[in-house]
Amino acid sequence: MKYFYFFGSGKADGDAKMKDLLGGKGANLAEMTNLGFPVPPVFTISTECCLDYLKKNIFPKNFDKDLNEYLGRLEEITGKKFGDSKNPLLVSVRSGAKISMPGMMDTVLNLGLNNKTVTALAKATKNERFAYDAYRRFIAMFGNVVLGISFDYFEEVLEEKKEDKNLKLDTELKIKDLQELVLQFKDIVKKITKEEFPENPKEQLKKAITAVFKSWNNERAITYRKINGIPHHLGTAVNVQSMVFGNMGDDSGTGVAFTRNPSTGEKEFFGEYLMNAQGEDVVAGIRTPKPIESLKKENLQAYKELFNIKDKLEKHYKDMQDLEFTVEKGKLFMLQTRNGKRTAPAAVKIAVDLVKEGLITKKEALLKISANSLDQLLHPSIDPKYKREVLTKGLPASSGAAYGKVVFTADDAEEMAEKNEKVILVRKETSPEDIHGMHAAKGILTSTGGMTSHAAVVARGMGKPCIAGAGDMVVDKKHKKVIIGKIEVFEHEVITIDGSTGEVMKGAAPMVEPKLTDDFKIIMEWADEIRTMKVYTNADTPHDSRVAREFGAEGIGLCRTEHMFFEEDRIPYVRQMILAQSTEGRKKSLEKLLPMQRTDFVGIFSVMNGLPVTIRLLDPPLHEFLPQFDKKIKALADDMGITFEELKNTVDKLHEINPMLGHRGCRLGITYPEIYEMQVQAIFEAGAIASNDGIKAIAHIELPLISDAEELKILRELIERVAKKMIKKDKKSYKNFEYQIGTMIELPRACLIADEIAKYADFFAFGTNDLTQTVYGMSRDDTGKFLPFYLDHNIFEFDPTERLDAKAVGKLMEMAVRDGRKVNKNLEIGICGEHGGEPNSIYLCQKMGLNFVSCSPYRVPIARLAAAQAAI
Amino acid sequence: MKYFYFFGSGKADGDAKMKDLLGGKGANLAEMTNLGFPVPPVFTISTECCLDYLKKNIFPKNFDKDLNEYLGRLEEITGKKFGDSKNPLLVSVRSGAKISMPGMMDTVLNLGLNNKTVTALAKATKNERFAYDAYRRFIAMFGNVVLGISFDYFEEVLEEKKEDKNLKLDTELKIKDLQELVLQFKDIVKKITKEEFPENPKEQLKKAITAVFKSWNNERAITYRKINGIPHHLGTAVNVQSMVFGNMGDDSGTGVAFTRNPSTGEKEFFGEYLMNAQGEDVVAGIRTPKPIESLKKENLQAYKELFNIKDKLEKHYKDMQDLEFTVEKGKLFMLQTRNGKRTAPAAVKIAVDLVKEGLITKKEALLKISANSLDQLLHPSIDPKYKREVLTKGLPASSGAAYGKVVFTADDAEEMAEKNEKVILVRKETSPEDIHGMHAAKGILTSTGGMTSHAAVVARGMGKPCIAGAGDMVVDKKHKKVIIGKIEVFEHEVITIDGSTGEVMKGAAPMVEPKLTDDFKIIMEWADEIRTMKVYTNADTPHDSRVAREFGAEGIGLCRTEHMFFEEDRIPYVRQMILAQSTEGRKKSLEKLLPMQRTDFVGIFSVMNGLPVTIRLLDPPLHEFLPQFDKKIKALADDMGITFEELKNTVDKLHEINPMLGHRGCRLGITYPEIYEMQVQAIFEAGAIASNDGIKAIAHIELPLISDAEELKILRELIERVAKKMIKKDKKSYKNFEYQIGTMIELPRACLIADEIAKYADFFAFGTNDLTQTVYGMSRDDTGKFLPFYLDHNIFEFDPTERLDAKAVGKLMEMAVRDGRKVNKNLEIGICGEHGGEPNSIYLCQKMGLNFVSCSPYRVPIARLAAAQAAI
Repeated sequence: MKYFYFFGSGKADGDAKMKDLLGGKGANLAEMTNLGFPVPPVFTISTECCLDYLKKNIFPKNFDKDLNEYLGRLEEITGKKFGDSKNPLLVSVRSGAKISMPGMMDTVLNLGLNNKTVTALAKATKNERFAYDAYRRFIAMFGNVVLGISFDYFEEVLEEKKEDKNLKLDTELKIKDLQELVLQFKDIVKKITKEEFPENPKEQLKKAITAVFKSWNNERAITYRKINGIPHHLGTAVNVQSMVFGNMGDDSGTGVAFTRNPSTGEKEFFGEYLMNAQGEDVVAGIRTPKPIESLKKENLQAYKELFNIKDKLEKHYKDMQDLEFTVEKGKLFMLQTRNGKRTAPAAVKIAVDLVKEGLITKKEALLKISANSLDQLLHPSIDPKYKREVLTKGLPASSGAAYGKVVFTADDAEEMAEKNEKVILVRKETSPEDIHGMHAAKGILTSTGGMTSHAAVVARGMGKPCIAGAGDMVVDKKHKKVIIGKIEVFEHEVITIDGSTGEVMKGAAPMVEPKLTDDFKIIMEWADEIRTMKVYTNADTPHDSRVAREFGAEGIGLCRTEHMFFEEDRIPYVRQMILAQSTEGRKKSLEKLLPMQRTDFVGIFSVMNGLPVTIRLLDPPLHEFLPQFDKKIKALADDMGITFEELKNTVDKLHEINPMLGHRGCRLGITYPEIYEMQVQAIFEAGAIASNDGIKAIAHIELPLISDAEELKILRELIERVAKKMIKKDKKSYKNFEYQIGTMIELPRACLIADEIAKYADFFAFGTNDLTQTVYGMSRDDTGKFLPFYLDHNIFEFDPTERLDAKAVGKLMEMAVRDGRKVNKNLEIGICGEHGGEPNSIYLCQKMGLNFVSCSPYRVPIARLAAAQAAI
Repeated sequence: MKYFYFFGSGKADGDAKMKDLLGGKGANLAEMTNLGFPVPPVFTISTECCLDYLKKNIFPKNFDKDLNEYLGRLEEITGKKFGDSKNPLLVSVRSGAKISMPGMMDTVLNLGLNNKTVTALAKATKNERFAYDAYRRFIAMFGNVVLGISFDYFEEVLEEKKEDKNLKLDTELKIKDLQELVLQFKDIVKKITKEEFPENPKEQLKKAITAVFKSWNNERAITYRKINGIPHHLGTAVNVQSMVFGNMGDDSGTGVAFTRNPSTGEKEFFGEYLMNAQGEDVVAGIRTPKPIESLKKENLQAYKELFNIKDKLEKHYKDMQDLEFTVEKGKLFMLQTRNGKRTAPAAVKIAVDLVKEGLITKKEALLKISANSLDQLLHPSIDPKYKREVLTKGLPASSGAAYGKVVFTADDAEEMAEKNEKVILVRKETSPEDIHGMHAAKGILTSTGGMTSHAAVVARGMGKPCIAGAGDMVVDKKHKKVIIGKIEVFEHEVITIDGSTGEVMKGAAPMVEPKLTDDFKIIMEWADEIRTMKVYTNADTPHDSRVAREFGAEGIGLCRTEHMFFEEDRIPYVRQMILAQSTEGRKKSLEKLLPMQRTDFVGIFSVMNGLPVTIRLLDPPLHEFLPQFDKKIKALADDMGITFEELKNTVDKLHEINPMLGHRGCRLGITYPEIYEMQVQAIFEAGAIASNDGIKAIAHIELPLISDAEELKILRELIERVAKKMIKKDKKSYKNFEYQIGTMIELPRACLIADEIAKYADFFAFGTNDLTQTVYGMSRDDTGKFLPFYLDHNIFEFDPTERLDAKAVGKLMEMAVRDGRKVNKNLEIGICGEHGGEPNSIYLCQKMGLNFVSCSPYRVPIARLAAAQAAI
């Protein structure tokens, strides 16, 4: 088994295609080596080795031998020796997974330093300060990453030291200070681990490799993978690279750059660097870096070389690149390239631009945009008419706007969000430990850090507004307040942030719907050209229907008539209907409801003119319409002129132990046919009114919770009977009106007898919410006590209520599609559960040959893109 | 299309194999004609004609022509003419379905009579009294069956007439009385139908045929089919037969006989007849008939001929026959033969005897017994030590004993039974309209009617105790009491009936378990020889386990540990466990429960020595263990020394909206592993104790509600970890102990990913209760509002919670069997839902290749027989 791969001196054991084995970082280092760029020599230990290690908890057989051999090759090229007392080789040890997980896993720099090599390094570089600075960094980093000691211990000692000496910047520390820090740091290690800091470089290296391997399964990596849908079985590679130093003085530096603006997508060289610093300083956002253009002045040659490389890389990779580089004593080294993370607007613009530049095709462009990320574009922004009173300003790190209550910790953010509170997470800086809080917050605001800081990168990935480095602002976590000059903002006060301008305001600013760019429209057009599934929407009101149509919906895939029943002016009649002791009584209440439903349908038909409107007849259990608490029951009883006891009895009688599996859906329509008769009549009357207004009304009447063909047969007959009656009464009004009769497929049994059901159906719509619940035996209302646990503990790879389960739910759907079409080859089949707007699920729908997906109005563009990607 | 079939003069158009087309009665008449027995000529209109008629609601094209032709053939053979004023042909019109439905459908006798033919008949038979007796019977029967007039109208007039004339028996009526009755009956018809009674014999015939066709879909026929699992699409044939008359005087008579005793199975000629009567008089139980042996004295030749025919018929059909015959002026005619209904003990004895007599094979014998009917044999009987105080005695019409509250109408019986009250239905006589009440009652008691009366026949079929013809008893329906001499028994008083002796007692007599006959044991042995599936039992206590083992259970297929948790001495600890706020707290309560569970398991292992015991770990939602009402919560809170509010809060927090789909099953085991750890420890400790007592303990540890392989993997690891620990502690105690780990398959998802699950399972047990609920999206707790409606309206052919649904539930099971065995070809697969004791479901299980079925102890013999039948 080959576990080690070597790249150096322009030759590499691998290339960019080997990401599975070498990880993204390793593969790209190999590629850059092959391209002849200045990459410090490096060897990569493959993901296979990681997986082997994680499985058995020991290194594979020949590991030590291979490690020595590959260290030897590093030594050969660099002319340095690992642990040498004259010219010691130092290395960085970095993780590198197949799919980039920025900041999620662990890195150790300057490895190989000990009391002996630090002296040698000082001599060799003729820079004692640099050597001890590197040494104290190494001890802290190794202590943190490998030995698991909180960074705070080291940070505290460092801060004390600076206070003692009255210094502001780390770079102002003297050699003696650094040497003292080295001793103090080692003391910390000994105190906490009860062991001496390891002096043996090989021991350091093996421990660091172990730490990187294990970091694959640390909590924040797992969280990141979950959020981003990255499989847990990939493992990480380890890159052991000869160190180059950005902290060798003022002619050295380190930086991060993007080949285009990752926030807007503009074609401009965009990046930041810090002189006399190591890479971690830039990413962590502790010091605020300089823009890349400044490098032109400080080191024109390095700038030119970098500029040249970035052009070549972008052409080579045909995508916007995210680069890491270091300048050591004036000389440029490339440490990393990868496809850059970007905001959704940037993704759209870059994709369109790359097509215009002839670098990629339309199809490739569509694949470059995460469908889910479009959500960002559809978020509201602050109303332009709103007169902003700006508290402070920071970097516009991730676009979009949001308001919410201020919280200071990730845990608070999560807790409040669970109570449906909107929160803004405010931090000095964020770290990977904050991921869950960032996920929960509506927006993120930090007082330090740049556009490539942790907060900025992560927020962009999440599509959340973020302002970074709002430097005028002091975050007083202890007293739970933010101080901006004389103004104080306390915990739970509401602020608004505009991630597109960097402005922070007090209170909740009014928001407006997003305006979509031309680039966005182009992408949507390309998507529409390519996709084969129709995109419908789930909408119950004319307003929602209008929004969805504007977003490109081609029809209504699910109009839930029960939502219309909940409105305040209707609920009294609905309740009377439920409480009626006789069919006659029920019919009286239904007569009251009929004109209201008719009006709704006229409105929706008018908006959707010419497009199909799928109307689901009453579905939920009747008791849902009744009040649950004694106080409310009493009030209603008074209203209705009956006694509390009477009403209470009826409510109790209607109570079901498992309402999800109870008297609902078509079971209502069969036992109380007058309800569905009224609804069908309302649909037809509305159709006639709309038609007479010149509207083309197309009703797809849909029956819920079918478990047996007989149910559908009976209800189809009911609908056709009413239809015949209506049309006979008023023939010419129905000239422009079309209708079909179909069914939800939302029970396992419906999937399993789809051939029988298809005999009576013009269309099928998978109700994957209910289907998932019955397939898993898991009610969405009751998963709170175990589903989060299951997801946290990796028992379920994903939440099947969010993303369609292909193995079982999908399998049943495939059977239904196959058997349904066997009987009725023109059967229109689609999906209208929540999954209809989720890209992975849309991909599955395409695979199983569905004709349409239906989702909430704001997800229609996402579904359009995802459907196109699925078609590709 | 040939719709008409003719049999007469020793030649027939068909034979006994043509039951599909000719119905049972028609096919057997054909067969008897072919055998040369004296069958009055007859033609049969096929079931196809019926189905055609029911579909289109008109007779097929050539119907009238065919009818005339076949009437002509009857006329030819009999030498009589239909509607003739000299020698008129009279016919009976009888239904005859493929599967016998005694008394369920309609029959008209003496058809062809009118004012003209009655005179001719009087002349031709020289018996005016007979002619008018036949005429008044015909009008009443035609009025009832064809014109839908309640029999009570005619009955009332008849009774008045007898009272007027101070007569006791119908046979005492004079010619003039009968002529008056004819006029009065016609008046009734005219009054109710507003039309004259039809005088035209052809019109009478077509109307009667229509009535028989339509009777296929009358309510009682549908009910009967539902109860007996007869398909609704068969239709009935109509037999139009030349009349012979049992009411032509004292040298005429009519009777019903069985070739063996249908109640005990003894090989004895068994039957009853009435002189000067028509068939309806015997079956309806209005007059009490004479035993068949009396015929020997009254008409030796007819008796001998009948005896001879019954022997031949039994040999010919290789089964006990139920015969109808008529003697007309001394001459014997055969009107019907069919396989006789019998009680379960009789079925067992006859089957064994027929094998001994060399008439049938063992396999054929097994198929002759309805597995469900064995239930009768397993019903308790009255404790022999009980000193009976017999109120009255009737005919022992259907064996077994029962007690219950007296009710007088079928509706009352049904209503009370729905409230779980045991009732005895007490009637003067029963009629087909009473079926639903007989089904609901524990036993039936009538004051008139014989062993072949409606009550007796139906009760035997249902396996319910019945006493018929308890003639000392007066049923005063109006005042809701029974009068027996000076004793009165009022509605809702409890009585006991012994259907094996005919004795009626006041109060509830103590019951004992049934003793099984040697014949029963022989049948069970034959069944065990032939069946290939094992029969396990569902038992949670040593007592149940013992009963089941005695009934032949080969192991425990389901031991529900939660049932053990509900016991009074345990529930406090269970509640403490649930209310514990920490793992530690939970563990403390579990420590208290551990020894109790251990004791249970020791008991069960000891009883089942050497047989597998499948133990399902805790399954139901925890809140089921908590009190639901404020009063009880308060009491519990006091007990536990916490406040009402605290406890109420916890109960509320544990409440689930759909508990069936909530935090239960393995989800509990995964989130609270300490619970399953305790249970596994208890199993192992019990295993060690039992083993040390020389018991061979075999534990099949079973995990409920698995939806994903990962769950099973984790829990298998948990069990194996505990197992390892336990065995390590005390190696030698486990020498005699075996264990396996398996899973319930009770969710659609488990069926669909059975290949993944099978990797971690030694066995699968289908939990078809939950599987049916999730496949149908129908909770058994909540079906009350629609499932009865569905069954009443034929929307579902059967109740899928009682009988396994082959189309969907069965399909999923088949997939699971196939995919599970693909991965693990030694996988033991069985079923442990309620369906495991239901013969149709057992048949499906055999078909899909299961290894075992598991059912409640009392159903074990049924399952053994059903499994054998399925194997055949």
